[in-house]
Amino acid sequence: MSQVKICLDESDIPRHWYNVVADMPNPPAPPLGPDGNPVGPDALAAIFPAAIIEQEVSRERWIPIPEPVRDIYRQWRPTPLYRALRLEEALGTPAHIYYKYEGVSPAGSHKPNTAVAQAYFNHVAGVRRLTTETGAGQWGCALAMAGQMFGIEVRVFMVRVSYDQKPFRRSMMETWGTEVIASPSNETRSGRRILDSQPDSPGSLGIAISEAVEEAVSRSDTNYALGSVLNHVLLHQTVIGLETKKQFDIAGDYPDVIIACCGGGSNFGGCPTLTRGHYAYDSGDTEGLTPLMLMYTLGRNFIPPSIHAGGLRYHGDSPLVSQLYHEGLIEAVAVPQRTTFEAGITFARAEGIIPAPESNHAIRVAIDEALGSTRTGEPKTIYFTLSGHGHFDMAAYDRYFAGQLEDTSYPDETIQAALADLPKVARNPA
Amino acid sequence: MSQVKICLDESDIPRHWYNVVADMPNPPAPPLGPDGNPVGPDALAAIFPAAIIEQEVSRERWIPIPEPVRDIYRQWRPTPLYRALRLEEALGTPAHIYYKYEGVSPAGSHKPNTAVAQAYFNHVAGVRRLTTETGAGQWGCALAMAGQMFGIEVRVFMVRVSYDQKPFRRSMMETWGTEVIASPSNETRSGRRILDSQPDSPGSLGIAISEAVEEAVSRSDTNYALGSVLNHVLLHQTVIGLETKKQFDIAGDYPDVIIACCGGGSNFGGCPTLTRGHYAYDSGDTEGLTPLMLMYTLGRNFIPPSIHAGGLRYHGDSPLVSQLYHEGLIEAVAVPQRTTFEAGITFARAEGIIPAPESNHAIRVAIDEALGSTRTGEPKTIYFTLSGHGHFDMAAYDRYFAGQLEDTSYPDETIQAALADLPKVARNPA
Repeated sequence: MSQVKICLDESDIPRHWYNVVADMPNPPAPPLGPDGNPVGPDALAAIFPAAIIEQEVSRERWIPIPEPVRDIYRQWRPTPLYRALRLEEALGTPAHIYYKYEGVSPAGSHKPNTAVAQAYFNHVAGVRRLTTETGAGQWGCALAMAGQMFGIEVRVFMVRVSYDQKPFRRSMMETWGTEVIASPSNETRSGRRILDSQPDSPGSLGIAISEAVEEAVSRSDTNYALGSVLNHVLLHQTVIGLETKKQFDIAGDYPDVIIACCGGGSNFGGCPTLTRGHYAYDSGDTEGLTPLMLMYTLGRNFIPPSIHAGGLRYHGDSPLVSQLYHEGLIEAVAVPQRTTFEAGITFARAEGIIPAPESNHAIRVAIDEALGSTRTGEPKTIYFTLSGHGHFDMAAYDRYFAGQLEDTSYPDETIQAALADLPKVARNPA
Repeated sequence: MSQVKICLDESDIPRHWYNVVADMPNPPAPPLGPDGNPVGPDALAAIFPAAIIEQEVSRERWIPIPEPVRDIYRQWRPTPLYRALRLEEALGTPAHIYYKYEGVSPAGSHKPNTAVAQAYFNHVAGVRRLTTETGAGQWGCALAMAGQMFGIEVRVFMVRVSYDQKPFRRSMMETWGTEVIASPSNETRSGRRILDSQPDSPGSLGIAISEAVEEAVSRSDTNYALGSVLNHVLLHQTVIGLETKKQFDIAGDYPDVIIACCGGGSNFGGCPTLTRGHYAYDSGDTEGLTPLMLMYTLGRNFIPPSIHAGGLRYHGDSPLVSQLYHEGLIEAVAVPQRTTFEAGITFARAEGIIPAPESNHAIRVAIDEALGSTRTGEPKTIYFTLSGHGHFDMAAYDRYFAGQLEDTSYPDETIQAALADLPKVARNPA
């Protein structure tokens, strides 16, 4: 039997992150201010430390990973690359299926790869407090753990509907010593404005970002941290791909196709922001507190439907991923959630691991690729990132089994209406 | 900085289990029938395949691990041995603290080590169905996953109070294709007898075992599987210790003290069954369907208090662990649950991993050992098994933070009353 799990040694944890900007045919478009003019790095200084801002705008190919960050990575990295032999057998496919499992981190997803780095750079800059937002809670958990390890106080604005419905991720954050606040809250002007007009607001990621950014801007001891979208966040996640390359060398194989799910883009792949959004300048939050970024977006006021893959519910997408897609270097596929759960359950029964709903999107596409090989008889090597486990999402599996899970559709009018809200400086360079 | 995570290669997964019986100064006492006479291996043939029965009574030192079992072990084994450097720093201790983390298995605990082996031996014997019981759900999840991998239908009798209060472990079992039944149920005579007198019975592990055994005995296509207590179960868990020995060789260190929590004994260490029970013959279930085993027991009708470490709530203890304790080869410590959660949170904040409530018992004792070193300045090497993660136990952490977690005490009268129920053949050889 071939090797099932390809492990690397601690010494194989990358010593540098890889900056994809160095490979891009065109330089990334600059972020814009509300006046439509490019904003410089200093506009970010109120909420990010200098080292992070440098990474955000860097075109250097290799960025060194500080040793204290590697020391914490060693808790769960290198993560295993698996050959999904039992899944291949269940599908009767000649394809080789591999997946890199990021759910082995203590927070259960790939998010600590950047949370630890961001906490470290803030710690070195003397920052004692970080704010952030979280939807389903994966990112909030990652930053809570990372902050604790560098003695940084963390405050998480958690989308109220998740705060109420998913109390156990909140408990995790509290176990790591973090304060969790339901958003919209009375703690910020942005929150109070929403509550005034809608006291029962369920919140949204965009609103929670507004609250977290507002607090970071207004307090000199406090910075802000983001778990996706921005260039430095994607940079930190390149440890996944760098390890994967070494692991494919050991396997003596190489992927024909690489698949990942995509919300804000930290683990990219298949969401209607890419398939149906506009390539336009938009802000990252609902209040318009962030600079405008050129990205695929459904409009900052678009409220994504309440699918269970909370990590994919975002109106926009990483500018880097957006540009790679816009320039035809990657493809995007949208998949309805029922078929993603069906794929996740097939995977769990073959491979053991119960995946996060977000990861189920990648599994659906990987299985479809493999079934394509089954039909044609053509061998193919398929790789996907299993971004996290589903231990805090079992209620969604329950709903699937009970036949209560719905596929959401986005009528064209809904999307056109949301896009009509794009800021005035919006333009579609296509 | 020293190595944090000591990993082994796939080829280091043990090829044999280690049978501690070969080392015991005295042979284990035989199980007895209701008449007080020893029962032979055939008495177990109605519920166990021959290979398992051979292991149950074997005195061979090394028992081969079949390759198909090792193939599945490779999904998560070898598990990492961690040096808890950040915890040592937080405690300011000169002690070295190591832990072996079994929570990396897809089911989240050490239980799959034996579940996979039991499913395999039943599969080879042509058994198509397995029944078992589960309390908090760790064991039920492990057998659900293992059964699925060998095409065996699994039916789990889950203690009703857990079935109602911990629905997400039930969802996991269902995701792996297992049928989960709240116990006591109407499916068995044992269950109906309880329901007749107490329609609202919250159930207990002893009752659920009675139901699972009764169904296995009454159907020729169905066997029974147990997650703790019996010799073959402890045998399968020796993969943990065998890997640990290799890992300490790599670390160039060796433990002065080894700590594990103990319920039924598959991951032994510190529960009132050992500290306050009698060393006497007792049955494994409430109905008296199992043979009588010589073990530390609080009496089969003892209902353990509803502590959150569901895996430690059992009236008895493994005969092997009991004998090792009785003969002075191991020590036992009882710890109240509030201090175990305090220890678990200290651990989570330093090391990242949020432990299962059961594992928190071992962590409490490990931290106490380390604090002893801090006081005396004497270096010491401490090792404990982190038997699983706490992802399905966050409600217990919530209760701890809310000040709602209580320490239970066992008045002598309660224990004496429970012990008065011991079977007539009971004897205390001490």
